[in-house]
Amino acid sequence: MSGAGALPLTLLAEQFAKLPGIGMKTAQRLAYHIMSMSDSEAEAFAKAILHAHRTVHGCAVCQNFTDMTVCPICSDETRDHSIICVVESPKDVAAFERTREYKGVYHVLHGLISPIDGITPDKLKISELVKRLSDDGVSEVIMATNPTPEGEATAIYISRLLKPLGVKVTRLAFGLPIGANLEYADEITLFKALENRNEI
Amino acid sequence: MSGAGALPLTLLAEQFAKLPGIGMKTAQRLAYHIMSMSDSEAEAFAKAILHAHRTVHGCAVCQNFTDMTVCPICSDETRDHSIICVVESPKDVAAFERTREYKGVYHVLHGLISPIDGITPDKLKISELVKRLSDDGVSEVIMATNPTPEGEATAIYISRLLKPLGVKVTRLAFGLPIGANLEYADEITLFKALENRNEI
Repeated sequence: MSGAGALPLTLLAEQFAKLPGIGMKTAQRLAYHIMSMSDSEAEAFAKAILHAHRTVHGCAVCQNFTDMTVCPICSDETRDHSIICVVESPKDVAAFERTREYKGVYHVLHGLISPIDGITPDKLKISELVKRLSDDGVSEVIMATNPTPEGEATAIYISRLLKPLGVKVTRLAFGLPIGANLEYADEITLFKALENRNEI
Repeated sequence: MSGAGALPLTLLAEQFAKLPGIGMKTAQRLAYHIMSMSDSEAEAFAKAILHAHRTVHGCAVCQNFTDMTVCPICSDETRDHSIICVVESPKDVAAFERTREYKGVYHVLHGLISPIDGITPDKLKISELVKRLSDDGVSEVIMATNPTPEGEATAIYISRLLKPLGVKVTRLAFGLPIGANLEYADEITLFKALENRNEI
């Protein structure tokens, strides 16, 4: 790009390249696309970034992203506030909401325990979760972290922390995904599916 | 996302989804990433968009993106200003510059003739190219548009327009890409490679 000499464009491409999953080539393509926008479109894009970053913060109860003090899920009286589904990130809340089946509430940890990356339990929203258990009539906490080493470690750490408080702690079921082919399933998934088999 | 109720986040995701090659799922992931940025990082991103969009425009000579009146390539006295390489977009200039072999100058059309999409010749920077030919001592115009129906049509249209002006108009060579396997080459490429064969 040095030959083109468009320094502001290179700077913009570098900003795009900081985003996850965006390489330098895609970043350049996106930067060129911004050039093809109208003035108002480019301004709307820049404003959306600033507006979201300034107004969106963690819900006072569940720590999910919201522009209100308490998010719509936590302030919804029709939901079951006695069941808390603990997830790694706001994306996971969106995933559960898409099932339209879960009627409880959530708690977003904003990460998983990973000592290698310097993420110790105090960096996550775990104390906020413990506080909710002492306040409310919570009957069950579902550990819905990913089936990865970090997700497992976090689930086990939190379950050990919560059990002395007398609350039921459960874990998501692991097995074959619906529509999967046995032949292509990895060994651990297949073992989990066998181990957790149910009578029919 | 309606369940999460984070309206500014949804708006930001919609802005990302307008970019080419970014679907709604990736757009949401990028919007969440903006949330994890520091205030100064988010502001730098928004500013880079506005700064690039406001300061970058077409070079007065070649129409390539630049933040100056005349781009560094057009104002470079060591380059051969008698050869103009005509390309579809600024990305193509960057691609030729990466070869470090081309020493002439460029002309960016900012599109290809495509009547179906409403892109008629007057929508492209063709009159600016014709004007350059009357002013300068141009000896050759290389049509370097893509080997697609639109690229071919544009190359033929411009070559017919320029030939009466007494300028040599050439076209990029088409054939097998370096490192390719004959077995997997498509028929048209193979036919072009055969048709344009050279004595060795």
